[in-house]
Amino acid sequence: MTERNIRIQALDRGAVEDQEVEIVERKGIGHPDSICDGIAEAVSRALAREYIDRFGKVLHYNTDETQLVAGDAAPAFGGGDVIEPIYLLIVGRATKAYDGQSIPVDSIALSAAREYLRETLPNLDLESDVIVDVKLGEGSGDLQEVFVEDGEAVPMANDTSFGVGHAPLTETERIVLNTERRLHAEFGEGHPALGEDVKVMGKREGDIIDLTVAAAMVDAYVPNMDAYRAEVEAVREFVTDLAVEYTDREVRVHVNTADDYAEGSIYLTTTGTSAEQGDDGSVGRGNRANGLITPNRSMSMEATSGKNPVNHIGKIYNLLSNQIAADVVENVEGIRDLRVRLLSQIGSPIDAPHVADVHVTTAAGVGLGDIEQEVRDIVDDDLAHVADVTERTIQGELTTF
Amino acid sequence: MTERNIRIQALDRGAVEDQEVEIVERKGIGHPDSICDGIAEAVSRALAREYIDRFGKVLHYNTDETQLVAGDAAPAFGGGDVIEPIYLLIVGRATKAYDGQSIPVDSIALSAAREYLRETLPNLDLESDVIVDVKLGEGSGDLQEVFVEDGEAVPMANDTSFGVGHAPLTETERIVLNTERRLHAEFGEGHPALGEDVKVMGKREGDIIDLTVAAAMVDAYVPNMDAYRAEVEAVREFVTDLAVEYTDREVRVHVNTADDYAEGSIYLTTTGTSAEQGDDGSVGRGNRANGLITPNRSMSMEATSGKNPVNHIGKIYNLLSNQIAADVVENVEGIRDLRVRLLSQIGSPIDAPHVADVHVTTAAGVGLGDIEQEVRDIVDDDLAHVADVTERTIQGELTTF
Amino acid sequence: MTERNIRIQALDRGAVEDQEVEIVERKGIGHPDSICDGIAEAVSRALAREYIDRFGKVLHYNTDETQLVAGDAAPAFGGGDVIEPIYLLIVGRATKAYDGQSIPVDSIALSAAREYLRETLPNLDLESDVIVDVKLGEGSGDLQEVFVEDGEAVPMANDTSFGVGHAPLTETERIVLNTERRLHAEFGEGHPALGEDVKVMGKREGDIIDLTVAAAMVDAYVPNMDAYRAEVEAVREFVTDLAVEYTDREVRVHVNTADDYAEGSIYLTTTGTSAEQGDDGSVGRGNRANGLITPNRSMSMEATSGKNPVNHIGKIYNLLSNQIAADVVENVEGIRDLRVRLLSQIGSPIDAPHVADVHVTTAAGVGLGDIEQEVRDIVDDDLAHVADVTERTIQGELTTF
Amino acid sequence: MTERNIRIQALDRGAVEDQEVEIVERKGIGHPDSICDGIAEAVSRALAREYIDRFGKVLHYNTDETQLVAGDAAPAFGGGDVIEPIYLLIVGRATKAYDGQSIPVDSIALSAAREYLRETLPNLDLESDVIVDVKLGEGSGDLQEVFVEDGEAVPMANDTSFGVGHAPLTETERIVLNTERRLHAEFGEGHPALGEDVKVMGKREGDIIDLTVAAAMVDAYVPNMDAYRAEVEAVREFVTDLAVEYTDREVRVHVNTADDYAEGSIYLTTTGTSAEQGDDGSVGRGNRANGLITPNRSMSMEATSGKNPVNHIGKIYNLLSNQIAADVVENVEGIRDLRVRLLSQIGSPIDAPHVADVHVTTAAGVGLGDIEQEVRDIVDDDLAHVADVTERTIQGELTTF
Repeated sequence: MTERNIRIQALDRGAVEDQEVEIVERKGIGHPDSICDGIAEAVSRALAREYIDRFGKVLHYNTDETQLVAGDAAPAFGGGDVIEPIYLLIVGRATKAYDGQSIPVDSIALSAAREYLRETLPNLDLESDVIVDVKLGEGSGDLQEVFVEDGEAVPMANDTSFGVGHAPLTETERIVLNTERRLHAEFGEGHPALGEDVKVMGKREGDIIDLTVAAAMVDAYVPNMDAYRAEVEAVREFVTDLAVEYTDREVRVHVNTADDYAEGSIYLTTTGTSAEQGDDGSVGRGNRANGLITPNRSMSMEATSGKNPVNHIGKIYNLLSNQIAADVVENVEGIRDLRVRLLSQIGSPIDAPHVADVHVTTAAGVGLGDIEQEVRDIVDDDLAHVADVTERTIQGELTTF
Repeated sequence: MTERNIRIQALDRGAVEDQEVEIVERKGIGHPDSICDGIAEAVSRALAREYIDRFGKVLHYNTDETQLVAGDAAPAFGGGDVIEPIYLLIVGRATKAYDGQSIPVDSIALSAAREYLRETLPNLDLESDVIVDVKLGEGSGDLQEVFVEDGEAVPMANDTSFGVGHAPLTETERIVLNTERRLHAEFGEGHPALGEDVKVMGKREGDIIDLTVAAAMVDAYVPNMDAYRAEVEAVREFVTDLAVEYTDREVRVHVNTADDYAEGSIYLTTTGTSAEQGDDGSVGRGNRANGLITPNRSMSMEATSGKNPVNHIGKIYNLLSNQIAADVVENVEGIRDLRVRLLSQIGSPIDAPHVADVHVTTAAGVGLGDIEQEVRDIVDDDLAHVADVTERTIQGELTTF
Repeated sequence: MTERNIRIQALDRGAVEDQEVEIVERKGIGHPDSICDGIAEAVSRALAREYIDRFGKVLHYNTDETQLVAGDAAPAFGGGDVIEPIYLLIVGRATKAYDGQSIPVDSIALSAAREYLRETLPNLDLESDVIVDVKLGEGSGDLQEVFVEDGEAVPMANDTSFGVGHAPLTETERIVLNTERRLHAEFGEGHPALGEDVKVMGKREGDIIDLTVAAAMVDAYVPNMDAYRAEVEAVREFVTDLAVEYTDREVRVHVNTADDYAEGSIYLTTTGTSAEQGDDGSVGRGNRANGLITPNRSMSMEATSGKNPVNHIGKIYNLLSNQIAADVVENVEGIRDLRVRLLSQIGSPIDAPHVADVHVTTAAGVGLGDIEQEVRDIVDDDLAHVADVTERTIQGELTTF
Repeated sequence: MTERNIRIQALDRGAVEDQEVEIVERKGIGHPDSICDGIAEAVSRALAREYIDRFGKVLHYNTDETQLVAGDAAPAFGGGDVIEPIYLLIVGRATKAYDGQSIPVDSIALSAAREYLRETLPNLDLESDVIVDVKLGEGSGDLQEVFVEDGEAVPMANDTSFGVGHAPLTETERIVLNTERRLHAEFGEGHPALGEDVKVMGKREGDIIDLTVAAAMVDAYVPNMDAYRAEVEAVREFVTDLAVEYTDREVRVHVNTADDYAEGSIYLTTTGTSAEQGDDGSVGRGNRANGLITPNRSMSMEATSGKNPVNHIGKIYNLLSNQIAADVVENVEGIRDLRVRLLSQIGSPIDAPHVADVHVTTAAGVGLGDIEQEVRDIVDDDLAHVADVTERTIQGELTTF
């Protein structure tokens, strides 16, 4: 019998799928805010690994504050220039000395950020198009205390914080998420002109879904306006085909609607991201931990990317609550909508939240009592394995934005 | 008869006041995230006024990205030192040349930020404790188009965006909001030791409210540990007394609970803000437009502070939806909870949102039909006067965080 | 009998006064290079004093690397704007912790630099026209060793280095030096339009001296072009009158010769320094320790400003050699030109240079033997009192540029 | 018959070779000041080439102000870490727009600097050990005027400035120069442990030359203290052998004399440069245009590196005067020492200096009259071909430090 405080109730609203209006957004991997999230998390992983390599455990750090200052560019058909490099400032705290050793945290952060950019933005020339700067301080005194030595022990929550997760995704959510991901992974394969900065906005009213895609094109692969228009049309077709895999509703796809061909004003970039010209970014301003911005659902304001996955409870509970929600829906029949909220108690073990609040909307004909025990067991089990979240985050297996 | 698309429905959840668990947070004016919000908005106001003074209208700008890198400090009873200054980077876009004039946007931003700091953080020595840096670029090409000249015309929405507002505040929300504000405005009068960085977390479970206050104390006014403890106790008493003005529920007040007197680890600062040591900050990561973080309510992820109040629809609709909610609740009897959502339509006038969605939970005995027309009229009227939001924001009459 | 290695010889060249062509330059107090020199030295003094106040002795530091990045400005008759602030980066090393105390070296540097700017450039608005940034590291390991504790002991030289001084100044040198100084001190009193950035170039060919003055004018005090021309003419007259006090040679004075009235291209500034627009600066690139740049004389490349005056031998010997030269010429008759070179021996006491090389050109009728002993005694005595140089530098009584 | 104002006279001092005491210094390619000189010049070359490629001519720029802020490192036998990256700030002015084109000057500067570092400091990991930042502004208004279009025309001097060159080098000078260069080029081939930061100080007193070499060792190639000592000894032997090629005087070689083996305090680095820990640097503070610092000779204070080689007269005349001196000595017999000074006249063609002053010390038995015409012809010819200096500088064939 569990001692964890798990409460399972009926959700006091209908399923989001049934609401009249639904709005969903995803900022793609190359969006300035996402670049910051990605760098913050890459730096976090690199630091965690370095601490483990050196000391067998993760020391205090928090790197959830990367700031991107947009550059200036002159894109042109066939290939233009970045005029003024993007400026990236990595901000945070990290333990710089421990056990008689100096830990090169600034160098590690710098290197991790550059490697992340190299992998993520292949059209960004790291030698000329971006300046990566670092300002990592030591933490405040009491936070510098070293984390529990014994790998077995469960860390204590460092704050009163809150995580929230949902499942299953609505049709609109799945379309928005997959549009960005599959454009990147599948369409991009044969279309080098597609940049990494793809923003997708889905709006469903009743049974009509409007999907607005803003896709940066890379000028080196776009010889002229006809080629540009062909790329835009190809995106539109790809997304239209993709959408029907997830819904029977009517889907209307709009791509680069701000273009004005007559004026020659189109979404052409040199690097594949709008960060090259005019769009600044920072951590925690874009996608939530599940990869989406969903005003119809309750969201945590906590920035998940860049935080320490060992004891930063906001990060852990955001990731874990989504994990729990997904696990429940995958294993229990008859759930139309489910929300998991985890509330920490400062100073208590993170596997025993102050409360794990599970709200369920069941499918027609299914009573909450029919599934309650099943749900409870999964929640309990996932909480017992909270350390997996830390481990998988350090391994880069969990995405944070 | 209105042509605006205003929809009034029953809220498909109970009032937040009736939910079992409620969490509310407010980051005080001196919190690192709030400092960034405040600077971003101060810079925004200064730019807007300068443009109006010079050209009779507001030109394109967006300054919603200030980054704060914490300093290092050695606080001490009677007065300590800032060891390493706080670093503040103001980031954004602004029109630097128009109509043959150069506009000193960087100098204006620098000056506005320093003035804001001087007013807001009286214990921060601007000559030694903070470095304010500025990186303002020009905007992206198409955004640089000048705004409508004719003051009468209503601007068009620049994006598909979303604002949300709520009213009335729950008891817990009112307590959290007023605890921070009145500590600052009333208690602080006679207690110079109280810093500006006061963070308040309220958690209500059923009818018990736990209020956790983290209040930075200013070392120059705290001669020793006894004095510190007396200040903490005074805060506790003030807040306890204050809380009963807003609720009949049981309220338990906890102040600076992370203190460890035995270790001498207390919340003592030299400047009144944790930004002096270890706590970084940035815009849009703290309070929402209504001054609170409310996981029980739907929130917009949009950073409100620093954005252009003339045409940035995310900012305008967040401010306006709160305004509408407040107006309705003030003027219409029988509403227990009300949520206003405004969804823009890119390219349409901002006084005619794609949809104004009003969800109401009425008090017992009140039908939605009884109040629908009243509500609709207020919403319609406030939308018609959307320009007031812009005006009042530029005048500094509306708070954004 | 002295044990110091003092060598007195005839100078193997004629007096500079007798050379056919002579070039002398002085960059005024408001020149970008001089601003950097002045800040570096102000920071140095502030650190030295702080260390003495706290520990009774000066600890290791070296702050001889301030970099100035010019701003952008739009000067205008009656008062213009700084468009983009000047950026100043204070660079160096300083001991940040000693004897269990943290020393706020960054904050001290920031404060000292801003205070220096406030005093030196009254038309520079510190709130809007300049960003002062600081990057002070700890020194390299072996240099961090604390300096001798016993105040009586003479420090050891930290390097093999070299200082050089000359006396008396030639007529051209005196004119150049005093032109800048007296324009600032005397003329400026009644002429607020005169900025602090006054550069003077003197070229003597035979008995004709061409004096070229580039004087920044401050726009707030210059209502129109006529007023500007009047100020330029007033400078010309003042300098012409001044010059005859120092020479019987013909002096031709040229002021702001790059002006082009027809084009409206004049030397008008908002702040009184060319740093506001386009002229960068750094330490050690301008005047030598005697306030002049004198290609006809041997000069030390060592930057004097900002270095630690306790043990940085390059700084000490540059100041001391000029002091010795001045003392000798003041007290000994019959010297037309004199050069003092001090060469340190690393690890030896600084009052006992490896060699003190004194080269003299005597006046007609005076033999070197007639004055040798007198000269030697003065040199010996000044070397014995080398600590005075340190003391007077910390007190700000010796100028370094 | 020439119209150039060339004056040839006897040098009014003896040859430096005959002076009693001589001091010569060279900061190697990896010294922090030299790194800045090298980057400034690399950026200059890249900009010049870009302008020529785009517009057929060089536009206005000046990039002579790179600042290096030292990092922090933990070198260790077998390989240590850079703890805090070196920070490099490239400062200057460049034309950013011309003829309707935007020129990506910041990106070009960034790329050129990184490429220079990659080639020059093979042990510096550009991904983790250095942050390269750029702040290039536009120039001041009147300097932005475009340079002469017609490639044939000779540019006008932009300033009253001064260049000075000497030949032949003394024995001590040749030894110092070649010690650094050949350690790098020859010894380094088989000794990867030798870093690029090699500083050589030569002091000759009478016929005894003391050569002090400070050579950074690269830790990855130094497994232990014995290996370190062997490297130091190998350097000593190499230099000792090298020195006898240039002199018959007694040469005493001292390598890494500040080492303290007992304390374990040695000159070990991770990157091969002291910039990794505690030694800042900037342009124009190190070697003069001939690669040396020679207090016995008159030197120009002008920073040669980074300046525009088309019209920056200080740069051109420093390079040209050395070229002339070398050409004369190579082609004319009987010269023991020769100094060439070129003084510009602002607004006059740079091939017609205000005066070309040549001072000669002839060998015994040679009269000035015997060689005057020969000398004059060479000077005249080199002046006529001043454009070659510009061209060769852009091609990277002339070194500036």
